[in-house]
Formats: sequence, structure tokens, C-alpha cells
Amino acid sequence: MEITRRNFKESLGAVYGAVEEADFLAIDGEFSGISDGPSVSALTNGMDTPEERYAKLRKHSMDFLLFQFGLCTFRYDQAQSKYLTKSFNFYIFPKPFSRTSPDIKFICQSSSIDFLASQGFDFNKVFRSGIPYLNQDEEAQLREQYEERRNQMNGSGTPSYISPLSGKGPVNVPDEHKDFINRVIVLLYFYSSFSLRFQRKLIFQTLNWKYPKGLHVETVETEKKERFIQVSKVDEEERRRIEQQKQEREQEELNDAVGFSRVIHAISKSGKLVVGHNMLLDVMHTIHQFYCPLPEELDDFKEVTMCVFPRLLDTKLMASTQPFKDLITNTSLAELEKQLKEKPFKAPKVGCSEGFQCYDTAAEQLHEAGYDAYITGLCFVSMANYLGSFLTPPRAHISARSKLIEPFYNKLFLMRVVDIPYLNISGPDLQPKRDHVLYVTFPKEWKTSDLYQLFSAFGNIQVSWIDDTSAFVSLSQLEQVQIAMNTSQYAESYRIQTYADYMQSKQKSTSKNRKWAEDGWANTTCSHMHNR
Amino acid sequence: MEITRRNFKESLGAVYGAVEEADFLAIDGEFSGISDGPSVSALTNGMDTPEERYAKLRKHSMDFLLFQFGLCTFRYDQAQSKYLTKSFNFYIFPKPFSRTSPDIKFICQSSSIDFLASQGFDFNKVFRSGIPYLNQDEEAQLREQYEERRNQMNGSGTPSYISPLSGKGPVNVPDEHKDFINRVIVLLYFYSSFSLRFQRKLIFQTLNWKYPKGLHVETVETEKKERFIQVSKVDEEERRRIEQQKQEREQEELNDAVGFSRVIHAISKSGKLVVGHNMLLDVMHTIHQFYCPLPEELDDFKEVTMCVFPRLLDTKLMASTQPFKDLITNTSLAELEKQLKEKPFKAPKVGCSEGFQCYDTAAEQLHEAGYDAYITGLCFVSMANYLGSFLTPPRAHISARSKLIEPFYNKLFLMRVVDIPYLNISGPDLQPKRDHVLYVTFPKEWKTSDLYQLFSAFGNIQVSWIDDTSAFVSLSQLEQVQIAMNTSQYAESYRIQTYADYMQSKQKSTSKNRKWAEDGWANTTCSHMHNR
Repeated sequence: MEITRRNFKESLGAVYGAVEEADFLAIDGEFSGISDGPSVSALTNGMDTPEERYAKLRKHSMDFLLFQFGLCTFRYDQAQSKYLTKSFNFYIFPKPFSRTSPDIKFICQSSSIDFLASQGFDFNKVFRSGIPYLNQDEEAQLREQYEERRNQMNGSGTPSYISPLSGKGPVNVPDEHKDFINRVIVLLYFYSSFSLRFQRKLIFQTLNWKYPKGLHVETVETEKKERFIQVSKVDEEERRRIEQQKQEREQEELNDAVGFSRVIHAISKSGKLVVGHNMLLDVMHTIHQFYCPLPEELDDFKEVTMCVFPRLLDTKLMASTQPFKDLITNTSLAELEKQLKEKPFKAPKVGCSEGFQCYDTAAEQLHEAGYDAYITGLCFVSMANYLGSFLTPPRAHISARSKLIEPFYNKLFLMRVVDIPYLNISGPDLQPKRDHVLYVTFPKEWKTSDLYQLFSAFGNIQVSWIDDTSAFVSLSQLEQVQIAMNTSQYAESYRIQTYADYMQSKQKSTSKNRKWAEDGWANTTCSHMHNR
Repeated sequence: MEITRRNFKESLGAVYGAVEEADFLAIDGEFSGISDGPSVSALTNGMDTPEERYAKLRKHSMDFLLFQFGLCTFRYDQAQSKYLTKSFNFYIFPKPFSRTSPDIKFICQSSSIDFLASQGFDFNKVFRSGIPYLNQDEEAQLREQYEERRNQMNGSGTPSYISPLSGKGPVNVPDEHKDFINRVIVLLYFYSSFSLRFQRKLIFQTLNWKYPKGLHVETVETEKKERFIQVSKVDEEERRRIEQQKQEREQEELNDAVGFSRVIHAISKSGKLVVGHNMLLDVMHTIHQFYCPLPEELDDFKEVTMCVFPRLLDTKLMASTQPFKDLITNTSLAELEKQLKEKPFKAPKVGCSEGFQCYDTAAEQLHEAGYDAYITGLCFVSMANYLGSFLTPPRAHISARSKLIEPFYNKLFLMRVVDIPYLNISGPDLQPKRDHVLYVTFPKEWKTSDLYQLFSAFGNIQVSWIDDTSAFVSLSQLEQVQIAMNTSQYAESYRIQTYADYMQSKQKSTSKNRKWAEDGWANTTCSHMHNR
């Protein structure tokens, strides 16, 4: 089901229902770009620590826009022995909802845009009909604005100004405006200019204070964007009715502004297993755009993530882990989906729920987020069921709640780091042995071939560039490390440190490492993330 | 005429022809955003100097993309006594043309995108079919790459490597690759991986050196993006023919990559009058995107601009200048076009050239760049003709080359600066008297009302915020300046300086002002801008 601003409100019930009844959810995002880094090599050092990798992604990827979000819900139907799916393809765009709302800027990367264009992506749908959204802070601010305005209307400001007309009053009118305001009380004032905003506020307050029950005062805007203050005589009951209508209208406006974030809130509150493929960037973008700016420290990010998505599963990581690793040659989503239909795997039995469009995997609508979410779910089901074949007796269907799945929970595939396969969201990360790695600094003229030459006596090496003047060099034989260190002692143009020494001197200058409880984040409180 | 990547090449002749025959050109650009500033007030101090205003626009606006360019050419037909127009609406997008080409990132501003969306702007056409472009540096780099590759092919590298197979050779093969390369000389090597790029280069060089005349060596890519080295036996003549074909193909690739910039080069080389409405940002973006990153200093920008567009005319500035100023109440493009059809003006006589779509001003296709360029041209014609009514005898048609137009040349409307109406591109800027202006610093808690209060004794004031803790305050009466200065002498929370003192202390810390020749830029050499 395709969801834009045009049908969002009427579809929200169906989305909530689908999430509610699901056994698990699959998600996928499409972005306006991937990496805003200065150069690819600086972004992708294969020896990065998880902290460094997170920091780079946070710094260079969060200014892109997540503008399409795919959600596919999977409900297992016992009677038919198959999953019934409902898939949703949301178009998302931060349309400013009023003159004072934030005017979001986002970056587009030509290569990403060009790639999506070549896949037939509909940018007009995003920009003309994308669903707006607010993060939690923006929502809270807007809520406050509404409340403040309501209080003003009710005349509950601090009483401090003595009106020259009536002797006293609750409104604070600066001297230079008093004349104007007092004249206005007996006029119906017309205005259309921004610079009068302060005066307008005074008029409101004064009128409401002078005629607390007999007048209803409101700003109205004509089709030509001319703005009036409309003053009408009302009795007490009518006034209360108008107030209530207005409050309801404001609540609806607020809901409209929060927009797509409500879908993410529903997914979050459901606490259901959320499956994605190579999903680290999807998770980061989703939190960044719909909850809060990403925290600086990796550990804080893990904490927030566990609050928003308490159970995650990454099919790329699953496919790269035993027993799948040896059976699967290519873990890209499209290839994985194909391989998981063939022996020893079985294509999962799925059907689509009534009223929902069925995707045909033969048609390959790749890179439509709803389709990618759908086949990600298929991959998960196929791999989960394969695990069931090891049971005695073997079982053809393994539920999303099975203990067999648990080892794959909350481990997100980590691209480009050579010896750390995943980011562990619910606990400390793996600490790979890097005893055979040297940290080398050298003149900025050096190229990879200079490093090969320098280490030519020590067998095969692997080079991971850090910047113009430094790199990690991995030796293939551990016993060569000391020899390399010794020979470098008198060198002038370059310098060698062991990885351990380098990390120690680096850590001294920066960080305080958080202590993890034995059971990961079990004792974290997430209540502040679910405050609505 | 709508021009995208699909019909660009076949339309280029028509564009060149239209520019060639035109009496003047009108242009307009649409951007992915207007201002990337931290806050509107910081960007729009009404007391900015032209240098400051330019610096702000350069810093906060150049990361947006000019993605639609309108060009409308106007040729006066003596026989019919009317202008014949040809209008072109170009869609522009920096599609990367190869794996190694620059991957441009640009910013989108939600409010601008939303506005264009509401006008029916076709983003799909931009992103799927936009015409690519290169600036001058990128073009030069690409040209060099082609030349370097050609030299490599011809074996004209520095001879320095002694091949173990044959005794000597012109190629530089690092020790660790020698074995591989020597094996490869007798193999047809197949590869598909990036990491082999260096080895591929060596294979090329070695093969070409060993078989300088008998072999043709080339990389070919299959539809599946697998890449081969194709080695074919050829005789001398055939080899030369293949080389020439290849060179032609490369020249065409280069032209395709330069893309839309060729249109701007043609406009520039024509030296014709270029008319725009409120065109400063159009000019800045056009130069930035298709020529070179904008220079830091305003004077250097003026110099570059005069090279690219030797004669500019801004219809918004013209309409804001006498004799038009008193007759025209609203200088926004749409309103101006309407007013210039009514008395005392006359709707200009125009027709559209054969084979070109005619815009109907009644349909108001505003914010399509081609349409905006068209009505900008109409405005210019109408105002120019009005000037003719003052001649004795009055003349109904005033040419774009008339002396009457000259006072409006190269003066670009300057938004938001209260007392400097335009940026003078071909000479020094106006220096407004700011004797009645005070520079005030104060605690960051202060608001506009605090400033009103502070100066309440000095009559009406105008406040131009600089930042949280400073502002310019214009007094209405010059004689109050000294009194205000005196009373501030013992103040602790705020400080007052005259504008002159403030500017002097500021200039001391920064700049060296360029000396202008009496006749502006007349002696500037632009040859480096027209090197193709």
C-alpha cells in the first residue's frame, strides 16, 4: 500500500492494526544520499573501532533525508501454515506546516539520486505529497506553543500593566504601544504585515481581558493570505463551545505535524522484532529523523536504540554468520533472496492479506522501500526455518519468538571493518586481536606502493589508510611485528607503533569507557522515549 | 522548448542559433533552496555593506543547486515591428558521468522545494533527465585525463623499467607486480575488480610497449558491468583508424560531460545584453556552477562577472529607479509584468518564432524558468519603449543597444539593504551616508523593545540586528546622534559607537580596498574565461 500525505490519515488505522497483529516487522529506508565524507578512504578505514565507525557515519550521513520508508508486517496464520503480509510504502518529506515551523535543509548526493532515478523512483511523490514528521523535541515545542497561545487567549498572563482606559489590566503593554492599543479596543483592526505581530498579541490580550466573556477573538486568514482579527459577540456557552472546537482542531493540527513519526512510535511501542537488511544506517536515520539527534557517543546511541527498537535483527549479519556463512556466497539483498529459495533452503510460504497489493518477487521492484522490506522479511523467514531443520524432530516453521533466533538479536552488520563483523547494540562490542597491526606515520607524499616497499621484507601486508600521513599496516605473520619495530628504530622519515601502544596513547587523550553490566542494557529505563 | 538530457545534443544547434541572432537575452534560474543561513536576521542586516551582503550570499546560498535554467531570446523583426522570441527551459542535474567523476552534493531547503512542488515543478524531470555540466576546472581536469590516457596508450611514458623478459622497457613496474605482469603478457587477462586498477594500467603499458604496432589493447565493459582487456591483432593502418575513432569518441564524451555549461559559454561569448529580474543570485549561481567557485572578495566577483556577462540588466532595479519608481507600486515579477501592460506603459508587441511554443501570459506559468525569463524580457521591452516616449519626436521602439538603456547596465538589485539600491558590477559601489546610524552592543538578553526603550528620548528609531549582542540603530534626527553618544558615556550594560568609528576599527582589522579605475573594469582582461 502506497502512503502519502493525501491518504495518510485514513490509512493510519490500517497501519496500527497491521503492527498490532504482526509476529514480526521488516523495514527498509531510502535516502537522498549515503555519505557526505571528504573522501571514501578517509571514511572507510578497515581498522576503525566501532566507536570511530559510528562517529563517521553520524558525522557524514545524517544530513541526508530518509524520504521513503518501507514497512512490511508478517503475521503467521496457523490454519493456512503461512505468513500473511501487509506492506506499506511511505513517502516522507519535511513540509513546513506553518510560517514559524522549522525549515529543514537536507543534502542530496548526485550518485544516490541518479541511482534511484534509474530505478524509477518517484521524486515528485516525495516532494509534492510526502508525509511530514517531527522529532520528539519539535513535537514538545509545538505542543508548548499551542498551550502558551491557549493560556494567552484565556487571559492568564501575568497581570502587570495598568490600562489607561480602565484603570488596570493583566496585560503588559510597552509605553510606545499604549496609544495604539487603546485606540484599537474600539476598532476592528485589519493587518497583513509581520511587523505587527507584537501589536496583534497585545490586541488579543487586551480584548480578552476587557471582555472576558462577551467577545470571541480570533485570527482568520483569507484565501489571499490576508490576515484579520475577527471579533464576535458570543455568550458564555457559545464561547466555551468555540474554545473546545478550537482545541480539537489544534490537537488535529499537532497530530498532522507529528505525521509519519506516529508510525515509528507505533512500531517502537509494539516492542516487536524489527528485521532489516544491512540496517545500521536505517536505524540511525530513523532515530535521528523521528526521535532525536543522534548522541555523540556510541554507547549512548546503543541505549537510545534499545529504547526505540528493543529487538532488532539484521539479515545481512545473519546470512554472514554460521550456519549460513558457508552456504551463502553473496549477501546483497537481491542475491540473498534468490539463494534462499534454493536448496538447502526453502522459499517461505507467504500470501498477502486481503486488500493489500502483493509484490511479485519475479518482477524485482528492488529499491522501492516497501518491496525491499518485504523480501528482507522473506529472507528472515527462510533462514529461521532452516534453523528448524536441525531440531529433532525437524520443524518446518520457526516462529519469530523462537529461542533459535536469539543469538542474532541486536547485532547490526558493520560494513568495511575487516575484523569486527557487527555492532552489538545490546552490549559491549567484540575486541578483535590486532597484535599483528602496526600504526605507521610517514611523509604525505607516500603512496601505498611506498608502504609495500617499506615492508617488503615482512611478507604480505594489508594497508588501511587513516589519512595523508598515517595508516594501519597488518602483517601476515605475528612474529615479524617485533622485527619490524626494531628495524624502524633509527628511521627518520617514518615512525612505527604497535596497535596497542597507539590505542593507549589515543585513549589517554580522549575517553572514559562506560562499564557494561553483565546482561547488557537490561536495566536501562526507556520511559522518557514513550511519553505519549 | 523544453530541453533535458534526452534532446540536449540535437537542440544545441537551435540554442546557438537563437543566441546568435538575438538582440538581447533574458534568463532565470530555479534553485533547490535560497538561504542556508543560521537565522534570517543574521543574514539580513539592513545596514550590511555590499561586501558583507555578498559574503553572506556566497557562504549561505551556493550549496544549493541551480536545477532549472530559463533562456528566452528576443530578436527584433523590423518588417513586422515586433520582437520574435525563442524560449528554452533547461533541466539541469550533475549526473556523475563515470565512476571517477565528482559526486556533487547539494542542499535542498524544504520551504523552497515545497513552494516549487506547489507550482507543479517536475522534480522527476530534473533528477531523471537533467543535463549534466562541468565547471572550467573540472573540464580541464577531464581533458587532461583523456590526454594522459592517450599518452599511456601510445607508450609515451617515461622509460625507466627494465623488463625481465626482454631486457628493457618503458614501463615502471614495482617489484611485487613484476611476476604477475610478465605472466600476463602471454595471457588474455580477465578482471572485474577495482583493486586491480594499478595492475591493469601496467598490463596496458607493457603490451603496448612490447607490441607497439601489431596489437590493439582496449578495456571493454559488458552489459553486466564485467570489464575485460580486449587484445586484437591489427596492422598499422587499422590501428591508426581505431585510434582516431577513439579520439573522436572521447571528444564527444567530453562534450557530453561539459553539457549545459556549453550553453552558458555561448551566452557569454555572444557578449549580448543579458536581462534578469532580481538577478544577483541567478548570476552568482550561474558563475559558481558553470565557471568557477565564487571568489572570496566582492571585487574579484565583479571582475569574473564582467568576463562572463559583460552586459547585464536587472528589471527589478530598473523598475525601482526613476522614471519608473513613481509609476510602479509592486516590483515583483508577476505584478510588474501586469502593470507594464497598462498606461502609461504599453504591452510590447511580441510573437514567437516558428517551431517554438508560445507562452500565454494569461495562463501565468510562473516559476517555470523559461516562462519567467520570457516575461522578464517583456518587462524590459516595455520599460525601454517607455523611455522612448520622452524623445522628441517620441519613439515607439527602443533597441536593446540604445544609449537610453546604458544607465541601467550592470546594476544588480540588492535585496534587504536599506540604503544601497544596487550592486554596481562594473565599478565601485555607492557609499551611503550613515551619519545617523549608531553601533550598539549590549547583553544578549536584550530584545528590540529594550533598544526602543533605551532610545525612547530620541524619537523614532530603526533597528538592524547584527547578532545576539549588537545592532545598528538609525536615529531619525541627525542632531540626536551626539546627545545619544554623550548619555551613553557612563553606561555599563551597553556601549555606543558612531557608524564611522565602528567601520574604521573594523577595517583596520581586515581589508585592503582595491583601487578602481575611473572607468570601472574597462581594462580587465577576460581572455582566460574564453579559452575554448
